[in-house]
Amino acid sequence: MHYNKKQIAEFPHLFKINLMNSISGFKSANLIATKSKDNFTNVAVFSSVMHYGSSPAILGFVLRPTTVARNTYNNIKETGFYTINAINGGIIDDAHHTSAKYPSEISEFDKTNLNSEYKNEFYAPFVKESPLKIGMKFLEEYFIKANGTILVLGEVIDLHFDDDLILKDGMLDLSAKKITTINGLDTYLIPKEKIKLSYQRPR
Amino acid sequence: MHYNKKQIAEFPHLFKINLMNSISGFKSANLIATKSKDNFTNVAVFSSVMHYGSSPAILGFVLRPTTVARNTYNNIKETGFYTINAINGGIIDDAHHTSAKYPSEISEFDKTNLNSEYKNEFYAPFVKESPLKIGMKFLEEYFIKANGTILVLGEVIDLHFDDDLILKDGMLDLSAKKITTINGLDTYLIPKEKIKLSYQRPR
Repeated sequence: MHYNKKQIAEFPHLFKINLMNSISGFKSANLIATKSKDNFTNVAVFSSVMHYGSSPAILGFVLRPTTVARNTYNNIKETGFYTINAINGGIIDDAHHTSAKYPSEISEFDKTNLNSEYKNEFYAPFVKESPLKIGMKFLEEYFIKANGTILVLGEVIDLHFDDDLILKDGMLDLSAKKITTINGLDTYLIPKEKIKLSYQRPR
Repeated sequence: MHYNKKQIAEFPHLFKINLMNSISGFKSANLIATKSKDNFTNVAVFSSVMHYGSSPAILGFVLRPTTVARNTYNNIKETGFYTINAINGGIIDDAHHTSAKYPSEISEFDKTNLNSEYKNEFYAPFVKESPLKIGMKFLEEYFIKANGTILVLGEVIDLHFDDDLILKDGMLDLSAKKITTINGLDTYLIPKEKIKLSYQRPR
């Protein structure tokens, strides 16, 4: 199959967003949780959390501030803190439900079986059921001229994870706790079959 | 397990990069191929390709221009074009080998069993063995102040994929062609077990 730019632009809306959201490959599956200055909590699913650096430890994610992500964005800008929580097999349904458009005064923690959890006086709530929870401090944002999305960068402040996730070399074995990956907009997969390769040098 | 920012900063280098490269979750697995003005080709593995928008269709990826990715970056800036090619189960070893640091006059196409393929007069080479190949035109770049990485954004110009990848709703079923995902720096997984959920509305 081959489609050019013009054909892609003319696809029906839903077909196009399904296609375009899957061409980049598998995506990370995380819940971002925040708390407003007025103490309203919010938790929302994101498939755009990505590694930006290790020293300092920086993660980024992308949002379109006009969508459901608006509460997340406002709370981060207002308070400076948020949490990133991995979605594992046990919480897929509840995690996905956070994509529903609730008003800011309704917490997705009250509309799902997900529970908020506060640790070490970190301002934003963690998702109790997640096996990998990251406390983040807002660092920088970049407004993407091409389409009005925003890249939000933050620094890892606190890192919590189940003991059996970490390997001797420091890598977290995501499949050990059935952490999921997302294909497109709505399909969650639990990867299992692993192939570990070595550091590569020229032949 | 709990680590704070100070403890993370003090981890040994390799332990830290393994840990920090796995906390964001599963990553996409792609080969980015380019050709310099002087006709030297280059292909390199990236785990940072991500969806930025559907209308227009925009993908982004992140690089640190001082590493092996430098040839990729220079060729994109010089010519304006590049290709993104999904890594499936059949080419994992060759794809991973492209992370070795070859000088710019040596093509990774000559050092692996990957083959370049030219389609529809698109300037940059595609990876013949990949089931999902995207012709990209450079759009914008953002210099990340926090750590000197660069976010490169491009527009989808040409999209080629095997017929049996696409579903009726437009989504590409990445697992149908054993497209891989990356955990950390060097572990490739082929996800299989799928859970498709529906569009969510407030309860």
